[in-house]
Amino acid sequence: MRMTRKSFLPFLLALLSLSSVPLGSAQTPAAAPAAAPAAAAPATPAPKPITDADVAGAPVPTADARAKGDPDGSLTGTASDVTVTDAKKGASIGDVVNQIGQNKIAINFVWTLVTGFLVMFMQAGFAIVETGLCRAKNANHTMMMNFMVYGVGMFAYWLIGFAIQMGGVGAVANLGGTPPLNSEFTITLFGKAFGLWGQNGLFLVHKGTYDVGVLVLFLFQMVFMDTALTIVTGAAAERWKYAAFIASSFLMGAFTYPIFANWAWGGGWLATLGTNFNLGKGYCDFAGSGVVHAVGGITALALSMILGPRIGKYTREGKPNAILAHDIVIVLTGCFILAFGWFGFNPGSTLGASGNGGLRIGSVAVNTMLAGMAGSFGAMLYMWLRYHKPDASMSGNGLLAGLVAITAPSGFVNPVGSVIIGLIAGVLVCISVEFVDRVLKVDDPVGAISVHGTNGLWGVLSIGFFADGKSNYGGSWNGVTGSVTGLFYGDNGGQLVAQLIGVVTLVGFVFTLSFVFNLLIDWMVGQRVSAKSELQGLDLPEMGALGYPEFELKTQA
Amino acid sequence: MRMTRKSFLPFLLALLSLSSVPLGSAQTPAAAPAAAPAAAAPATPAPKPITDADVAGAPVPTADARAKGDPDGSLTGTASDVTVTDAKKGASIGDVVNQIGQNKIAINFVWTLVTGFLVMFMQAGFAIVETGLCRAKNANHTMMMNFMVYGVGMFAYWLIGFAIQMGGVGAVANLGGTPPLNSEFTITLFGKAFGLWGQNGLFLVHKGTYDVGVLVLFLFQMVFMDTALTIVTGAAAERWKYAAFIASSFLMGAFTYPIFANWAWGGGWLATLGTNFNLGKGYCDFAGSGVVHAVGGITALALSMILGPRIGKYTREGKPNAILAHDIVIVLTGCFILAFGWFGFNPGSTLGASGNGGLRIGSVAVNTMLAGMAGSFGAMLYMWLRYHKPDASMSGNGLLAGLVAITAPSGFVNPVGSVIIGLIAGVLVCISVEFVDRVLKVDDPVGAISVHGTNGLWGVLSIGFFADGKSNYGGSWNGVTGSVTGLFYGDNGGQLVAQLIGVVTLVGFVFTLSFVFNLLIDWMVGQRVSAKSELQGLDLPEMGALGYPEFELKTQA
Amino acid sequence: MRMTRKSFLPFLLALLSLSSVPLGSAQTPAAAPAAAPAAAAPATPAPKPITDADVAGAPVPTADARAKGDPDGSLTGTASDVTVTDAKKGASIGDVVNQIGQNKIAINFVWTLVTGFLVMFMQAGFAIVETGLCRAKNANHTMMMNFMVYGVGMFAYWLIGFAIQMGGVGAVANLGGTPPLNSEFTITLFGKAFGLWGQNGLFLVHKGTYDVGVLVLFLFQMVFMDTALTIVTGAAAERWKYAAFIASSFLMGAFTYPIFANWAWGGGWLATLGTNFNLGKGYCDFAGSGVVHAVGGITALALSMILGPRIGKYTREGKPNAILAHDIVIVLTGCFILAFGWFGFNPGSTLGASGNGGLRIGSVAVNTMLAGMAGSFGAMLYMWLRYHKPDASMSGNGLLAGLVAITAPSGFVNPVGSVIIGLIAGVLVCISVEFVDRVLKVDDPVGAISVHGTNGLWGVLSIGFFADGKSNYGGSWNGVTGSVTGLFYGDNGGQLVAQLIGVVTLVGFVFTLSFVFNLLIDWMVGQRVSAKSELQGLDLPEMGALGYPEFELKTQA
Repeated sequence: MRMTRKSFLPFLLALLSLSSVPLGSAQTPAAAPAAAPAAAAPATPAPKPITDADVAGAPVPTADARAKGDPDGSLTGTASDVTVTDAKKGASIGDVVNQIGQNKIAINFVWTLVTGFLVMFMQAGFAIVETGLCRAKNANHTMMMNFMVYGVGMFAYWLIGFAIQMGGVGAVANLGGTPPLNSEFTITLFGKAFGLWGQNGLFLVHKGTYDVGVLVLFLFQMVFMDTALTIVTGAAAERWKYAAFIASSFLMGAFTYPIFANWAWGGGWLATLGTNFNLGKGYCDFAGSGVVHAVGGITALALSMILGPRIGKYTREGKPNAILAHDIVIVLTGCFILAFGWFGFNPGSTLGASGNGGLRIGSVAVNTMLAGMAGSFGAMLYMWLRYHKPDASMSGNGLLAGLVAITAPSGFVNPVGSVIIGLIAGVLVCISVEFVDRVLKVDDPVGAISVHGTNGLWGVLSIGFFADGKSNYGGSWNGVTGSVTGLFYGDNGGQLVAQLIGVVTLVGFVFTLSFVFNLLIDWMVGQRVSAKSELQGLDLPEMGALGYPEFELKTQA
Repeated sequence: MRMTRKSFLPFLLALLSLSSVPLGSAQTPAAAPAAAPAAAAPATPAPKPITDADVAGAPVPTADARAKGDPDGSLTGTASDVTVTDAKKGASIGDVVNQIGQNKIAINFVWTLVTGFLVMFMQAGFAIVETGLCRAKNANHTMMMNFMVYGVGMFAYWLIGFAIQMGGVGAVANLGGTPPLNSEFTITLFGKAFGLWGQNGLFLVHKGTYDVGVLVLFLFQMVFMDTALTIVTGAAAERWKYAAFIASSFLMGAFTYPIFANWAWGGGWLATLGTNFNLGKGYCDFAGSGVVHAVGGITALALSMILGPRIGKYTREGKPNAILAHDIVIVLTGCFILAFGWFGFNPGSTLGASGNGGLRIGSVAVNTMLAGMAGSFGAMLYMWLRYHKPDASMSGNGLLAGLVAITAPSGFVNPVGSVIIGLIAGVLVCISVEFVDRVLKVDDPVGAISVHGTNGLWGVLSIGFFADGKSNYGGSWNGVTGSVTGLFYGDNGGQLVAQLIGVVTLVGFVFTLSFVFNLLIDWMVGQRVSAKSELQGLDLPEMGALGYPEFELKTQA
Repeated sequence: MRMTRKSFLPFLLALLSLSSVPLGSAQTPAAAPAAAPAAAAPATPAPKPITDADVAGAPVPTADARAKGDPDGSLTGTASDVTVTDAKKGASIGDVVNQIGQNKIAINFVWTLVTGFLVMFMQAGFAIVETGLCRAKNANHTMMMNFMVYGVGMFAYWLIGFAIQMGGVGAVANLGGTPPLNSEFTITLFGKAFGLWGQNGLFLVHKGTYDVGVLVLFLFQMVFMDTALTIVTGAAAERWKYAAFIASSFLMGAFTYPIFANWAWGGGWLATLGTNFNLGKGYCDFAGSGVVHAVGGITALALSMILGPRIGKYTREGKPNAILAHDIVIVLTGCFILAFGWFGFNPGSTLGASGNGGLRIGSVAVNTMLAGMAGSFGAMLYMWLRYHKPDASMSGNGLLAGLVAITAPSGFVNPVGSVIIGLIAGVLVCISVEFVDRVLKVDDPVGAISVHGTNGLWGVLSIGFFADGKSNYGGSWNGVTGSVTGLFYGDNGGQLVAQLIGVVTLVGFVFTLSFVFNLLIDWMVGQRVSAKSELQGLDLPEMGALGYPEFELKTQA
């Protein structure tokens, strides 16, 4: 042990200075890395050609051996599992190559679906984070908005939203090509084609879209859309009329979200800023800091402005009152669910694991966890230093802010970049919450505008700085050869300009459309519940039942 | 330490500038993307035959290049990762074909296990949905039934249930063939073989069943069985004696469930109605609307009849009183967990992704989500129109009803069919709850009979109408060539008849057996707690501890 | 039906005696198991050699057919999905073999990442199990420790812990070889090399570790480390100063955990006990009963001794008082989350599905579920018999104890062994809790020392008895040819000795290091909150907000 201790400090020092000098005495080279099978020619004089008989005759265990059971798996998964077209002849070279292609697509379907399921589960996280941050008297109402937004959004998206977003996306190679999604409506400006919306895929049966690859894509995109919608319910909680919520969410799932998503991801005009105007690789948003989170956050802002603050939130002098989270346990549990689901959100956005760049899934996942960590740290330290307590709600929001911010760059940056992006996000969310609360005087019970809006935009911009040019996805992104690269890694700023155009478009377009939609709903059915309902709590007047009818409650605020 | 500090700062700064190369100007080209291993152009007129040397010599990156790290994944996952039998020679054509087969089985194992894990997680969803719908005074007891049903059911199923269900299922090709499961007990009636139960697989070591493929199948089937059992605990909540619950669940996991499951899925006589009697493709139940949900729901009915209603549920005149859910937050959170787990339940029932029809996993998943959405909509709108409030509990039950109903047809219908099936389910569950409550006067605290029983049967029948004939799973289903097709898509009604036979059998057999089993338990240990325990709440008398000992509670009912 | 009944009893008897004699009349051999494709020679006189044209020309569906949609998946996933280096020529044999390798690594990445995500989600389970078992007045504080331990641990591990643990692990073949992890610091003793710590991988950019395979490994190892850390927060709950928690967790994630993990898993000296000293296959710990759980549990013991018991836990005479769980609903929900996550923990520890032994993932998963079941049974029955009630908290802990115990042996034992290991664990945890509580008089609010410490060590030892010699992982484990085998399956005791050496090392080293670290922190910032804070509850004084500000609470203890 003494020897260990002795060499430990210098080792540490050396590690910290990233020295590459061998330490101590015996430096084991460890097992030689993945020795490539000798490409050398076997010594045989004339190599025997391979025939179909060699393919069909690959040695497999006997049926007798198999019937005795295979505890270690050495007899299972052999040549006999290759699907053959002619059982009598056995596997041909064509069967073999087809099976390889099917395996590839099967892996990618499995990945995209499983990660899509994780994203769907985020709805549960949003539901309890938002409900926990609100007051107990609105628990049923807040839960129900979060619960039904899943159905309302999906209905709108199935009817028309998916067609608008993805109807003209063209070949998604990782999912087998999705050939039916081949029709984008475009206009020509400055001599360039600007894609505006897709046209195939209504009801998922329209124009050949009842297709295994298209359906996988639908599932993944649907749960993303629903994430954007559920962000809004948080900012509008404790005062939003349930019927207005249904109408507003429907319009957002049918139009607002899909149109912007088409521009960024469906082959629309933001994606072609690179090919059309030589701005980096066009607007880049790997997993949706902009498309999902900022769209949700900006819509939340527009709606909160229309709704106005909760009764009691501001004093007559305009000073904000704190309204406390009624259940920290579900708030932080929900944050964990969200962090778990985010491993679907970002890494799943590769839409596969086998195929060019698909093996980067681990890199995306690690970036995601690191940025979330840094975000929770940033917020905790900021609050601790500023208010002398490591605030639980804001630490949770810090985690989410880091995750939101890394969403767009997660596919293009390295671990160190991710930590920096997340750390900035964690501090930014605290400042933004204070700014929205005190300067804008917009009431956002859960901090959705800051978590998803502010940090969504920060995430989009961060690509323009931190993308490290090492993320080769099939040699191109948005049709431009080369890897996405930011200012800090030698880009000329074109990428940052593309990102800025995206941010301006997002804020301008989404805010305007959301504001108009929600103003219309306000005129038609009214957005806000009566003051009486609000003071009583929305559970009985709006939903007909209390969230916690058997628990004795103290009222706050 | 001082030295550390000293070297730490510059190091950090270097890291923060993210490169040892100056920023801006010098762009490191990094590792060349996906160094294309030269396929060497054979412009030769006569194509050169492929030899083992070509297979073994597939170009791979050098060890040197690999040791420098591979940020974009272009150097990882190459020919050098193929498992070889003779390391000196390198990969032979036999190795290559075997690796393809192993990859296929590996994909299918991954898919089946991950989806099985999701199904297991549904237990958590059932636990909190049921507990939330009950009263706080029974929270510990309801949670514990849901918790221990997992263990009790698994124990029974490991001992004998799995052998009965699957011991003679024969080859499950997607899992590598599962050869040890080759013994079904059959009788001959009308000149046809009727499979009654399987005979291999006790304790998972019997007759070669300690086998990698068999174990994957066990895991997936086990969690399905447990889902059926946990349905019962909901209907029997707030009055079921804990010891009786243990005995009842054991018998259901050992016999009731496995026997019917053998008939439908284990190669038993319902599955062979097509081959034996030309009734469509035999009784079809893709993921268990019948086998799992209706079996659970019908058992719940039998047991609820034996138990009788809770004290206070009915007035002297027989009018039902509403007993409120004590915690809507966990009810709806549980519904989300269930919807999440259902993505395992239905899509996982393909038992694989690579293989004929395996790529339909996305179709099954989308059908599942659409039907759940439509179910929650149907129930919400029904309640809103009928009782003027969008009821949270019933919206949750509507989602579950839609999911239950689509479970059987999810592999055979299209998205539009799924929405219709789910919408009907959402309305049906509301009507059924009222019917059970008011007409049958059977007390079911959580609506399990309606959600799982009524809609399970509806799901089974819906195949006879909505199966669209496009679901090719290896060219046959239940041994009958062609795709499963319903009345609306041109079938002659044979499929519907097969489904009806299944429904009649299920109701007759399961109800009878469950009733007899539970009557026996009632005679031997008593099914119902004392009135004193029930009024006090079951937590202290049955479990020895309160669910919420520190929260002040109001009593209801 | 009569016939069925008649033959049922003898069948049961026969099954129970594991008879292999065919029963009844018609014994169907069912579908012939996995007919191996005829290895027979095709009748053609001279087999035609396969050329690149045959490979490139594998028959695929036309683009026209594909554009019409593919509802059944029969046209998707074909030869046309193989990545080609020369698009004009189509797939070469080199492309095909490379695609097979990529598919293999992609499967393994998917498996390792998805299971890693599940492990991360266990943090949510730990958080609510621990919080539920504590008192409501400490809910915010207990949640926050569980929440931030994720970030604190990850930060430390990213900075240095991963490099120490895995920097010299050498080739992880299932993940493509991870060549940059090739530097272990070793010393020579008794003429043998003893690995002490790894040296590559700081910040995940150091020495080529910005690498897709390394990042996948990091993610999986990171969540394991965090599991160990979060165990400690339970034992130290309700009295631990938040700032001390941060410091303590950082040191554990940076040093304590990684060093021991290096010795067991990173190529360190415990792993080489087999090659160096002929002790079985060296110290074996498949998924971390020792590395994760015992390290966590032993650290929990050291810290609890430093902290001392909660005020009110012991009477003046030293008799322990029961302090009740404040919310059984979240305790058991958390147990389900943990059991769900454990399907990542153990089966994911194969680090892949395709590759030698990878197909054992189902076996590992089934062992895991069976041991958990047996553990919950063992604890429930023990409590029921001893205290006349089936205690919910201890049943939950019994499940966890079974899962902890099977973690080390899960890859080496069979289903029957798993049930026995789990059953013992379930009883052992009850006895251990009583022992810690009454004899050691160490206060452990959640039973972490017994669940993770005692049963972690039991799990490590159980390999020495129950490993059945059927678990072939590529022909060797820790570099020793042959399968891991225990005393009950014919080993000479060498394996058991290796396990004992591991146990002694773990207890001695981890306890000492943890004790010293935490004593230092105690001297520097103090480990324990003031008595006033403790009596009030830690939520306001430490975190600045109550966990449940709106619920009326009764105080206990």
